[in-house]
Amino acid sequence: MTSRPGGTERTRGRRLADRAVTETAALHAVLDAGLVAHVGVVDDGQPFVLPMGYARMGDDLVLHGSTGSRLMRCLAAGAPTCVTVTLLDGMVLARSAFESSMNYRTAMVLGVARRLDGDEELAALRALSDHLLPGRWDDIRPPSAKERAATMTVALPLAECSVKIRTGGPDDDPADLVDPMYARTWAGEVPLEASFGTPVPEPASAASPVPRYVSQWGRA
Amino acid sequence: MTSRPGGTERTRGRRLADRAVTETAALHAVLDAGLVAHVGVVDDGQPFVLPMGYARMGDDLVLHGSTGSRLMRCLAAGAPTCVTVTLLDGMVLARSAFESSMNYRTAMVLGVARRLDGDEELAALRALSDHLLPGRWDDIRPPSAKERAATMTVALPLAECSVKIRTGGPDDDPADLVDPMYARTWAGEVPLEASFGTPVPEPASAASPVPRYVSQWGRA
Repeated sequence: MTSRPGGTERTRGRRLADRAVTETAALHAVLDAGLVAHVGVVDDGQPFVLPMGYARMGDDLVLHGSTGSRLMRCLAAGAPTCVTVTLLDGMVLARSAFESSMNYRTAMVLGVARRLDGDEELAALRALSDHLLPGRWDDIRPPSAKERAATMTVALPLAECSVKIRTGGPDDDPADLVDPMYARTWAGEVPLEASFGTPVPEPASAASPVPRYVSQWGRA
Repeated sequence: MTSRPGGTERTRGRRLADRAVTETAALHAVLDAGLVAHVGVVDDGQPFVLPMGYARMGDDLVLHGSTGSRLMRCLAAGAPTCVTVTLLDGMVLARSAFESSMNYRTAMVLGVARRLDGDEELAALRALSDHLLPGRWDDIRPPSAKERAATMTVALPLAECSVKIRTGGPDDDPADLVDPMYARTWAGEVPLEASFGTPVPEPASAASPVPRYVSQWGRA
């Protein structure tokens, strides 16, 4: 699956094969770069789309939440899902509204998740921590039995997936490049950059040094 | 609607009323701060979640895409949709895995969109440009009749909506605050910040100054 069902953001006239990158490496790169997924499920014909932290664990995408969460119960019960991760990389300024666009990387995974338990669930919780908070696991208390009982963890196989990527500047209409009114309009790309800011300690940590692994978080 | 169906990211044990903010002002603030929405539709029981640029136009959320897009055709045909906008504001580092979390703002809009045409469609296209590329509209060529014919624009009323917001530091388990092993673990929030980088001109614009409105884009 490479580009179903189309219609990704400002794709007007751009739904081209060169945006459909099927390689597993590209899929993993997008999933490993993102922090939040948008998870879709259907309830009585109504779609629901919810943001969740996630992690890739080998060839699975793992999610977790409260056992009281309707979304998690739907997923654990085998409801078809679509999990989409999008990184917005910049705005593309063309000389026309029509060719204005965005640069982005997006991965979509379709399928049915399965609930994890035991060691497999613990490995998924660790994978979530390692992905979202790299280096943190050894400093914090692992989940207790009671906390484990209140948590539901599922894995969605990376089987039916698509990746779409747009990079670079605008693809202006050739006529606009020689138009007396618009040829001189500045055109190009304005990158969008995400970064971690200065850590804010809670009161009891005010005098403690920020952990080295946190200082090294450059990703976002 | 304030918190259906629950399960938003690391909400384990946190699905509390204080995260459900129902005011219209909060909804508008989240929608006006975001750039990409994740749009869910259902096709034969399978949810699809796709990223799209969007804008708020009064009490509607507007989307546009190619007339050839399956998603846009679904929306224009009156398929139930869920449009979710999420801004990730930071990582929350607690002393336990269970209380580790994220700070975020998310808005979810459920409903059925209607296709726009004529002046209403043009106003929506302008609203999209003004939201995604503030200040740009007067510098660029508006959509031609042919481009308009290739574009489908829909409006989703902001009627059935929810907003959830998490801010601040960790809510540690009191026992962890006095635990000999974990009490000294640094805890707090690491903000995540997005900003626009240095504009990259396409070759023909290399000698032109970057427009003032672009230099002023601080939002993201």
